[in-house]
Amino acid sequence: MKICKIIGFATSSIKVEGLGAYKLVILKNIDDTGTPTGDSFLAVDTFGAGLSEVVAVATGSTASKAVQNKNLPIDAAVIGIIDHISLLKKEIYSKNKEE
Amino acid sequence: MKICKIIGFATSSIKVEGLGAYKLVILKNIDDTGTPTGDSFLAVDTFGAGLSEVVAVATGSTASKAVQNKNLPIDAAVIGIIDHISLLKKEIYSKNKEE
Amino acid sequence: MKICKIIGFATSSIKVEGLGAYKLVILKNIDDTGTPTGDSFLAVDTFGAGLSEVVAVATGSTASKAVQNKNLPIDAAVIGIIDHISLLKKEIYSKNKEE
Amino acid sequence: MKICKIIGFATSSIKVEGLGAYKLVILKNIDDTGTPTGDSFLAVDTFGAGLSEVVAVATGSTASKAVQNKNLPIDAAVIGIIDHISLLKKEIYSKNKEE
Amino acid sequence: MKICKIIGFATSSIKVEGLGAYKLVILKNIDDTGTPTGDSFLAVDTFGAGLSEVVAVATGSTASKAVQNKNLPIDAAVIGIIDHISLLKKEIYSKNKEE
Repeated sequence: MKICKIIGFATSSIKVEGLGAYKLVILKNIDDTGTPTGDSFLAVDTFGAGLSEVVAVATGSTASKAVQNKNLPIDAAVIGIIDHISLLKKEIYSKNKEE
Repeated sequence: MKICKIIGFATSSIKVEGLGAYKLVILKNIDDTGTPTGDSFLAVDTFGAGLSEVVAVATGSTASKAVQNKNLPIDAAVIGIIDHISLLKKEIYSKNKEE
Repeated sequence: MKICKIIGFATSSIKVEGLGAYKLVILKNIDDTGTPTGDSFLAVDTFGAGLSEVVAVATGSTASKAVQNKNLPIDAAVIGIIDHISLLKKEIYSKNKEE
Repeated sequence: MKICKIIGFATSSIKVEGLGAYKLVILKNIDDTGTPTGDSFLAVDTFGAGLSEVVAVATGSTASKAVQNKNLPIDAAVIGIIDHISLLKKEIYSKNKEE
Repeated sequence: MKICKIIGFATSSIKVEGLGAYKLVILKNIDDTGTPTGDSFLAVDTFGAGLSEVVAVATGSTASKAVQNKNLPIDAAVIGIIDHISLLKKEIYSKNKEE
């Protein structure tokens, strides 16, 4: 799974039937200092994650298992909101400290 | 999903049976300013999206869920036409403003 | 799907049972001028595409839907021979002009 | 599969139902000298691998076969703890020597 | 599929049940001159391919179709040993010449 920061939101009125039930968030991977990096991409979010929240994102066909309707063409979904990240025993992110 | 701009079209007369029903669009990812970037790729489009429109594209085996015939070897499909994109609370794309 | 040019061929006598029925072509993505670029890869071709032909290639598990035996470990297959490509209303490839 | 080193851990209290049973490790690919390289990513670990251990990681939809609940949106899972790696007949990693 | 050279081997004593039956090879893609390039990765090999042999490798969930037990979390498998590669009508690899 990717470790991502939510950097924005997208809306779409004309889309595949059934997709309307889900919010589309825009994400970037974070690097080892917690900074967003690389290309942006879209994911379905069922957790109501807010701007700048750090989340775990599953990509590929497995992502559709994160939503109730398994027949949607979804290739990325938020699967959890990250509380805490430690790299080499050093804390690099803590949700509580950010708030 | 990828956030892409339609930059062209392709036609193919000799192809897998069943694919003939679908339009093939050529896309590029857009960067944080909305500019097309990186390599071009092909996707099936069932929405009749026009040149320069910004769309959401699902890739991988899940893409075939976007079309009626689920048995086609499709690895990318337009799943929605994007109306609006905001990054860090700043609007970077609005379909209406472009038209 | 990828837009690729056939740059070569490979043969294999020791391989997974059932694969013997299919030709293996070597491909590269083409860039916006139609020039092959990036890493080479292998795909199964059921269309008898020739050297330098431009083709659409499906990758991932969906590729096996392009051949009759769906139980083969195939991750890339030619799904059509491209006739014509236009980028931003400019024709960059036409099969007939090449011949 | 990727050859990775475990460089950290992540926790998530709000996540997809069923994911709670699994530990989330943070990994990087290793290069030919055994040094972690490239982007970090998350995987489910059912082996209790420790910090700095070298593991084999399966990615994509196949990863969910590594855990008991096959219906989870998992795209990366540790599938084994590596004992020994040789490249061009030269040993570049041995678990026992590291301990 | 990827065109790869076997550059090494890995062993793992603690791994997913059922994986024990298969040899793990370490591979790199080859470039247009036949030289290994890019990142190393692991694949299951059922052909007993030797060091420096050139092989075709299927990646993603389709790879598990290359082994008898389809329920294993395998994302890369050798699907054939390459005999001969020609690029733009020039032979760049022949298994017999290498031996």
